[in-house]
Amino acid sequence: MAHRVAIVGSGFGGLFAAKTLRREPVEVTLIAATNHHLFQPLLYQVATGILSTGEIAPVTRDVLRRQQNLTVELGEVTAIDAAARVLTVHGPDGAPRAIAYDSLILAGGMRTWYFGHSEFERFAPGMKTLDDALTLRAEIFGAFERAELEEDPVARQAWLTFAIVGGGPTGVELAGQIGELARRSLAGNFRRADPASARIVLFDAGERILPTFDERLSRRAADALERLGVEIRTDTAVTGLDAEGITVAASGGEERIAARTRIWAAGVRAAPLAERLAHATGAPTDRLGRVSVGPDLSVPGHPEIFVVGDMMDLDGLPGQAEVAMQTGRHAARVVGARARGHSDPRPFAYRDLGTMAAVSRTSAVAAIGPLRLSGRLGWLAWLVVHIVFLTGFKNRFTTLVHWAITFLGNARSERAY
Amino acid sequence: MAHRVAIVGSGFGGLFAAKTLRREPVEVTLIAATNHHLFQPLLYQVATGILSTGEIAPVTRDVLRRQQNLTVELGEVTAIDAAARVLTVHGPDGAPRAIAYDSLILAGGMRTWYFGHSEFERFAPGMKTLDDALTLRAEIFGAFERAELEEDPVARQAWLTFAIVGGGPTGVELAGQIGELARRSLAGNFRRADPASARIVLFDAGERILPTFDERLSRRAADALERLGVEIRTDTAVTGLDAEGITVAASGGEERIAARTRIWAAGVRAAPLAERLAHATGAPTDRLGRVSVGPDLSVPGHPEIFVVGDMMDLDGLPGQAEVAMQTGRHAARVVGARARGHSDPRPFAYRDLGTMAAVSRTSAVAAIGPLRLSGRLGWLAWLVVHIVFLTGFKNRFTTLVHWAITFLGNARSERAY
Repeated sequence: MAHRVAIVGSGFGGLFAAKTLRREPVEVTLIAATNHHLFQPLLYQVATGILSTGEIAPVTRDVLRRQQNLTVELGEVTAIDAAARVLTVHGPDGAPRAIAYDSLILAGGMRTWYFGHSEFERFAPGMKTLDDALTLRAEIFGAFERAELEEDPVARQAWLTFAIVGGGPTGVELAGQIGELARRSLAGNFRRADPASARIVLFDAGERILPTFDERLSRRAADALERLGVEIRTDTAVTGLDAEGITVAASGGEERIAARTRIWAAGVRAAPLAERLAHATGAPTDRLGRVSVGPDLSVPGHPEIFVVGDMMDLDGLPGQAEVAMQTGRHAARVVGARARGHSDPRPFAYRDLGTMAAVSRTSAVAAIGPLRLSGRLGWLAWLVVHIVFLTGFKNRFTTLVHWAITFLGNARSERAY
Repeated sequence: MAHRVAIVGSGFGGLFAAKTLRREPVEVTLIAATNHHLFQPLLYQVATGILSTGEIAPVTRDVLRRQQNLTVELGEVTAIDAAARVLTVHGPDGAPRAIAYDSLILAGGMRTWYFGHSEFERFAPGMKTLDDALTLRAEIFGAFERAELEEDPVARQAWLTFAIVGGGPTGVELAGQIGELARRSLAGNFRRADPASARIVLFDAGERILPTFDERLSRRAADALERLGVEIRTDTAVTGLDAEGITVAASGGEERIAARTRIWAAGVRAAPLAERLAHATGAPTDRLGRVSVGPDLSVPGHPEIFVVGDMMDLDGLPGQAEVAMQTGRHAARVVGARARGHSDPRPFAYRDLGTMAAVSRTSAVAAIGPLRLSGRLGWLAWLVVHIVFLTGFKNRFTTLVHWAITFLGNARSERAY
């Protein structure tokens, strides 16, 4: 019987692990909770009406249809028996199934985390899933509709105020796109409400936005956002959230801002899968719930169990698509080598290909090797990289068309809710 | 003060009425329950993963943004005071507002109707709204996912059985596209379930499908569907629907078919707005709840109230996009003439531009004037007409791209749920 590999998760880590096993003498089962791979770096473009869901969420089994040694099964892993090497999976029918494995690659990713303030959740949706993006899209475009109906100028301004918590790439990109929306795309759409008077406030508890970039790029991004009219409030912690607005604490004391749309782009934490693994194997986890792995990405004491992508804790590597792709690929190479009876490949070494964040339709910041790009040049780099990494030629093509419509033509096609 | 026109509904009737008033000395308020115009003839393509929501549902206020004499307001008309000429509108905030009018154009369209069997609703979604299409999309693609997980062949076949009730254009087009999906687009996607073994059954209580077309075209459409493997069951009435399947009665007696996906494309009935109008004005309605109008499309005794589109009962005109466009335009011309103090235009006369229905990716039936087209020629006619009538150049362009992907390239881009 062929060596059985179970991969859990259809994000970058799981997808790249699966593809890497294409020609190996193994039988792969990919288990995922959704029917699609999610190109998460572009999720904010679905939330702001630029891209359709299909463009960033190709169906996993369609992407992998030619891989004959692979089966995709929908379901959630609810238990891991590491001794017996069996997963319990609850499928869409709600019934448990057992999936036995010889090697296991876990790529469950992260979930939105409210730093223990779970009461915030209903007042500020996160930005991790396709459903999150669709919820936000309805909230953002709905807020302008509500402003249009509002007679009272104070109440109207609350509908035109967008509070975004978290100054990482997702928060920055959302703030920038809501800015573009309000200042450009919605121009002329309303009669009573003036979208251009929208207030977009980006909060971060740290001292600067995009803290993983160097200070100069971080400053450039802040400048570009401010030119779009986004207010940046660093050193500012969120102390309260409710249906009407947000309360923050800064050096000047507490402040209350009436904001009908609030978005949480601040915290993430490992998926429950990480905890289930820790429970099953005793593997240590860090404060974000991520599982510590060895240099071959396997869990201590279980050379047959690998953790890759965002839910892995290794050398302080950040939760980025590129890390997930490279670790997914590496774990699959180890599994493939062992299935062939070869010796293990060399330990995992991350090749930093750079990081980038788009700020507006003409500006992005990018750190690629020794290069530091911003403005239009950064945006061009961003464009090329995102087109290259989008899954599938068809999505690349229609995405380019939608970008042309939005960034040259000023319109947004995907605003229906 | 300018003549105030209230238009209710953002479908073809309401949209064309609004556009026709562009240069008239009137103030228009367009009241709609959704933020989008819906290109309903292509709704089945959203349900079957070909088009994105934005492509068939441009935002109404964006389509009309240059029309300075017009305001769009979201809300539902909950009461009509025909004597005082005031509408009560409940907006998204749940509070009532009063909107006064001098002329009123009602274009509320139709809702799915289960012929009094409201207990069928939860077991067979209709196909009238964007939400309907998204629900169906998740059901259709989800059914193949469930079939893949099923070990028992009988249970698996029930997941691979699609029962479509209603042999009008919507039912025919859905059956054809589910056939294309199963036989072509999903090929290679599954390991245990064979999509090509899917059973697609189209039921109609009448003696033939597409009864509004002549018999020859109706036969051609049936042939094309059968070549796709669709079973056509005419003279067959639905007597029961539940979570597991469908019960039908034909000349041979009752029959039970296990079908996990059931779609209702059989009945429609005028929106509640029609009943509110009948209540307010005593206007007569027909058995589908449609309001009878005079030759100028106004309601008896209320020359200032017009009913257009599907919810209008006039000369047996069918509920089709073209009728809605022409009646919307005519009512607006009457209103415009009166606002200028001109005499009324001539009574409404319908110009029959033809009807068509797509059956598969290479076949459609079309009746255009004396022409009767089927097969590839019919499909070309279908293509040209739908591209011409799609709202907005951008949607035309991306829709053409998606059609090329699907009909030439065999893939479906919008399958994520």
